[in-house]
Amino acid sequence: MKQSNFGNVVALAGGVGGAKLAYGLYQIVPPENLTIIVNTGDDFEHLGLHISPDLDTVMYTLAGVANPATGWGVKDESWNMMAALARYGQPTWFQLGDRDLATHLLRTKWLREKYPYNWVTRELCQRLGVRCTVLPMSEAMVRTMLMTDQGELAFQEYFVQQQCRPVVRSIRFAGAEQAQPSREVASALRNADVIIFCPSNPLLSLDPILALPNMRRIIAASRVPKIAVSPIVGGAALKGPAAKLMAELGQDVSPLGVARHLQDVLTGFVLDHVDQAYQEAVSELGLRSLVTGTVMLNDEDRVRLAREVLAFAAG
Amino acid sequence: MKQSNFGNVVALAGGVGGAKLAYGLYQIVPPENLTIIVNTGDDFEHLGLHISPDLDTVMYTLAGVANPATGWGVKDESWNMMAALARYGQPTWFQLGDRDLATHLLRTKWLREKYPYNWVTRELCQRLGVRCTVLPMSEAMVRTMLMTDQGELAFQEYFVQQQCRPVVRSIRFAGAEQAQPSREVASALRNADVIIFCPSNPLLSLDPILALPNMRRIIAASRVPKIAVSPIVGGAALKGPAAKLMAELGQDVSPLGVARHLQDVLTGFVLDHVDQAYQEAVSELGLRSLVTGTVMLNDEDRVRLAREVLAFAAG
Repeated sequence: MKQSNFGNVVALAGGVGGAKLAYGLYQIVPPENLTIIVNTGDDFEHLGLHISPDLDTVMYTLAGVANPATGWGVKDESWNMMAALARYGQPTWFQLGDRDLATHLLRTKWLREKYPYNWVTRELCQRLGVRCTVLPMSEAMVRTMLMTDQGELAFQEYFVQQQCRPVVRSIRFAGAEQAQPSREVASALRNADVIIFCPSNPLLSLDPILALPNMRRIIAASRVPKIAVSPIVGGAALKGPAAKLMAELGQDVSPLGVARHLQDVLTGFVLDHVDQAYQEAVSELGLRSLVTGTVMLNDEDRVRLAREVLAFAAG
Repeated sequence: MKQSNFGNVVALAGGVGGAKLAYGLYQIVPPENLTIIVNTGDDFEHLGLHISPDLDTVMYTLAGVANPATGWGVKDESWNMMAALARYGQPTWFQLGDRDLATHLLRTKWLREKYPYNWVTRELCQRLGVRCTVLPMSEAMVRTMLMTDQGELAFQEYFVQQQCRPVVRSIRFAGAEQAQPSREVASALRNADVIIFCPSNPLLSLDPILALPNMRRIIAASRVPKIAVSPIVGGAALKGPAAKLMAELGQDVSPLGVARHLQDVLTGFVLDHVDQAYQEAVSELGLRSLVTGTVMLNDEDRVRLAREVLAFAAG
């Protein structure tokens, strides 16, 4: 049973971890009351295609077609285009599945025809049967760039090509200062009754969204519950380079480190049982806190955690 | 054994029929002595991709990866991108196989990066192991347009989407007057020791090439043997709409009709045994003629016909 008594729920999400909680929220919140704002700092152009990894992960996950093994791409995928591309001697470090290609081709075509990014995202989502609202964080292009011990790398070079091996010294979001949250993003945040920060990488998935002009101010000004779920559990990231990155940038690799990082835009924080020891320190930041199981191994975990987060927000 | 005593062989080709004879020539002529000039009037943009059906058919055929069942595309193909595209509610009248997509993506990327069409074609061919020279007829874009009883249609709309059903009243090659044969095309023709018109549709595959400024003049001025192989056998086209089109445009649906159509750029003409009755009339046009088996059902047929055509040219 979907319940409308949560009001308008807005969630900020990056890739895999964020998509899992978004999926849980989608199961219990009426779709007309749910908006997922998605990081597009990972977007890049490859083979002439505009690729948006986080939007795709969220969209595929909500549509129930995500590849459960990889966390990205679609299930029952084939790789024949890649095999042909390899025959042409082209680099294959970024894997593009055959089914997945339809998304990239269509998005690229529409963006090149100057349709708004929001419209393109809505069309793709609706045609896959996703009924809640999924928004790219901005109509403008923002690019996450990592200054590393091997020079500055674009996100996908760092993340996929170099598999996060380089040591990161700083991160910037190229274009963010000239970008704006879209009207739809700003409006969703202003009409939100609760704002959820999904367990996405705070430095690579949430920071690009928060780096948009006015974004922190809009969220900080909002008087509604603003709850983050820690992506760090037991000193490690459940997926991806968050822990390594936080350590390299001198942050506490703990829920407390995450809470501190997001503190100015939060009212509450959710951490895992194994990190119960941090609850007091989180409270001392002035945040309400909830300790529960945050690891989402299956759909039931996702729905349970979503329900607990919303109940905690309302409580 | 490949023989260099044919000198430089230049063949003009469109799609399937042309590619078959080109394949035969490729088996017997040293690759450095063989140039295939290919119609690009069928090129079009689809899903944001630059698609060149005739170049692909020639390239795939020479590379030995063509799909023998369809005559276009590659063998052992899968169609998962198309299935995903259909799920997005997109038109699927133009089939794009997963392996084939690598060609379209790469060509489109390179053309958008402003690499010459010749360079792009050479790269694709070389990487597939094709060692002779394959040239798009021009660096400029020419579009075959058909005025029909249903209005003017672009080639692929007529050929694939409408399956050649509309009645054609006239054909024009948009952009041909501003186009030029590329330097490489002009040079190949000037250095040719024999020019072969492959059994391609004269109105849709050879005419776009001949419509380029100076093209007829360059070929007409050449003092070498210039031999066409009839694509019309027994009053019908072996493949495609040539017979229907010729009839609609008031031409004789016979080798004689083809010979008349190309007469000013030919010195010789090859027709099938079943059309022996036309040999005299073809001779009366001032053309030498050869009657032989022109139907290419297998690789042996292709090589035999190529050998016979070259021997006839030399004779």
